[in-house]
Amino acid sequence: MKTIKTWSKLALVGLTAASLVACGGSEKAEEVAKVDAKAEVINWKMVTTWPKNFPGLGTGAEGLAQSITEMSGGRLNVKVYAAGELVPALEVFDAVSRGTAEMGHSGAFYWKGKAPAAQFFSAVPFGFTAQEMNSWLHNGGGLELWEEVYAPFNVIPMAAGNTGVQMGGWFNKEINSLEDFQGLKMRLPGLGGEVLRKVGGTPVNLPGGEIFTALQTGTIDATEWVGPYNDLAFGLYKAAEYYYSPGWHEPGSTMEAIFNKDAFEALPKDLQLIVRAAARQANAVMLDEFTARNNAALESLVNEHNVVLKTFPNEVLVALKAAAEETLEEVASADPMSRKVYDSFKDFNSKVRAWHEVSERAFINAREVE
Amino acid sequence: MKTIKTWSKLALVGLTAASLVACGGSEKAEEVAKVDAKAEVINWKMVTTWPKNFPGLGTGAEGLAQSITEMSGGRLNVKVYAAGELVPALEVFDAVSRGTAEMGHSGAFYWKGKAPAAQFFSAVPFGFTAQEMNSWLHNGGGLELWEEVYAPFNVIPMAAGNTGVQMGGWFNKEINSLEDFQGLKMRLPGLGGEVLRKVGGTPVNLPGGEIFTALQTGTIDATEWVGPYNDLAFGLYKAAEYYYSPGWHEPGSTMEAIFNKDAFEALPKDLQLIVRAAARQANAVMLDEFTARNNAALESLVNEHNVVLKTFPNEVLVALKAAAEETLEEVASADPMSRKVYDSFKDFNSKVRAWHEVSERAFINAREVE
Repeated sequence: MKTIKTWSKLALVGLTAASLVACGGSEKAEEVAKVDAKAEVINWKMVTTWPKNFPGLGTGAEGLAQSITEMSGGRLNVKVYAAGELVPALEVFDAVSRGTAEMGHSGAFYWKGKAPAAQFFSAVPFGFTAQEMNSWLHNGGGLELWEEVYAPFNVIPMAAGNTGVQMGGWFNKEINSLEDFQGLKMRLPGLGGEVLRKVGGTPVNLPGGEIFTALQTGTIDATEWVGPYNDLAFGLYKAAEYYYSPGWHEPGSTMEAIFNKDAFEALPKDLQLIVRAAARQANAVMLDEFTARNNAALESLVNEHNVVLKTFPNEVLVALKAAAEETLEEVASADPMSRKVYDSFKDFNSKVRAWHEVSERAFINAREVE
Repeated sequence: MKTIKTWSKLALVGLTAASLVACGGSEKAEEVAKVDAKAEVINWKMVTTWPKNFPGLGTGAEGLAQSITEMSGGRLNVKVYAAGELVPALEVFDAVSRGTAEMGHSGAFYWKGKAPAAQFFSAVPFGFTAQEMNSWLHNGGGLELWEEVYAPFNVIPMAAGNTGVQMGGWFNKEINSLEDFQGLKMRLPGLGGEVLRKVGGTPVNLPGGEIFTALQTGTIDATEWVGPYNDLAFGLYKAAEYYYSPGWHEPGSTMEAIFNKDAFEALPKDLQLIVRAAARQANAVMLDEFTARNNAALESLVNEHNVVLKTFPNEVLVALKAAAEETLEEVASADPMSRKVYDSFKDFNSKVRAWHEVSERAFINAREVE
């Protein structure tokens, strides 16, 4: 992991072993493999952007590998490599592209340097929730576009995890108006950072392991990370008093399973379908886990650690939303593929929001009426 | 299908062939089965509550069968029977329980006569959205309770489809206050119907195929069905002018895959896991499909068929919510198992709503600020 110079969103170093969840996947996988010893065994490496068993993300990758291995009766045996074990966290895509590893687990926002359009398949400021992203990918043409974006790299993508709506971040002062963003140094990578810059802030990109100290020493004024489940483990409440919602910059961050095209297509049809179902399962498993676990962590932050929970004022949200639209338009203007993806995104977005206006949103507000 | 006396929610007769989606699953399944002809083939029957290839639900069941068959390389060959082909729609549970069929695809609300607690695993008025239900089932103890409820019947349940938030129904007059529910005859089965009764209405249970005529002739004043995607196909806009949201009575209706316990446990471990992953996949596939397809249908209803889209007034929602809580308390009081499930439901509900207050709800409202 020493070779990682630039950490982006969700990457992390220095997680204590005590907070890790033991998975036990490899033992079970071996047992299944023995049962089917007569069948030809294909061994695959899965490289990931996550530290070993990092809650939600690393455990999600382990679960995916275990599912494939067990569902295939051990015929397709997937071994997981944490960030830095085989390749550095941010070389996952390259490793899968050239076949060093047959598959990887990561997030598409990391590959904007290779293909700017990739950013639309991870998290878009004021964009899709998890449910909307999944619907766009699987029933709105999104996945086909994602495949097109990765095709020149010999890589096949699938959605394989979602964090749900994240939190808006940790601040050491209140955000009462847009003025409060002027000159604000906030750890906010990716598209969200570009949006922050447009409203007068200074986005900073820091490795996960450096966030706490930077916030505590005043090197940065604010930071976002993921949500209560991960933020509590990071101890960010010790370095900032205010915890803002909502996570306008990442309303449903999608994680990806990526495959070397030659390796995937060499699989027999049944194993290809097992891999696809396992990815779809992993996609749901992670969202279910984050949805269930964030609240206990949020309660702990508020009740035990005296964190002040705040929401961004409307004026700020309006400005951020306008800045987000400008940012996306700029990304779309960069190359024809980004324009094509953005057009699809925008079209589906307007339609699904119209539907959710009378369904998800109407209901989620209706049950709170008093 | 002639033997079906009482149709409940989502059941349907008289769907025109033209609106059906061809699946082609059986052909593909046979092809795969031939490839693995040397392996032992297990043949399973899947009975369903749906007409053949009924959009979303019947096609979801077909997709599930096809996935299992193909992922297993034809070793586990699942043949789907539409409602009435092998057993009537509402005898699916019994057929699976006694092993006439090894598996079924249906909805838990149908089995309240056998186990009142079953109702919590389908749709609860003012209850869980799809994302919340999935999280409760898979990370909040819900599935274990569901298994406990079905265990005396030798049946194993899994979530295998979700419609998302439904619509509040079709009315031939405006609902401006609670007064407008007095004496209102509405086709609204299940828990929603009980809630309606508490606010002065008269719930009516009608087979799907009779709804249109009953509404047009004034036998009923209102009806709910599913959402735009299914409601448009049913032509309900020809019989009522007002289309209300939100579907407070079914905020995320879960469909189930159910298994004869002996049949499921007789499968080797890899096939059991293939079945579980296929169900989890089907669960996501259906939600993605409804999320993507409802809007086009809604646009058609409003723009081409002049449907007037309305939302229930707050006063009405407050009364319905209070009535829903009374109803659920009554269900919970009926037997110890229902109490146990309701306690778990309530506990998870309060926690996930607290989290969604600052995440899903905060975001979905934030992106609409102006």
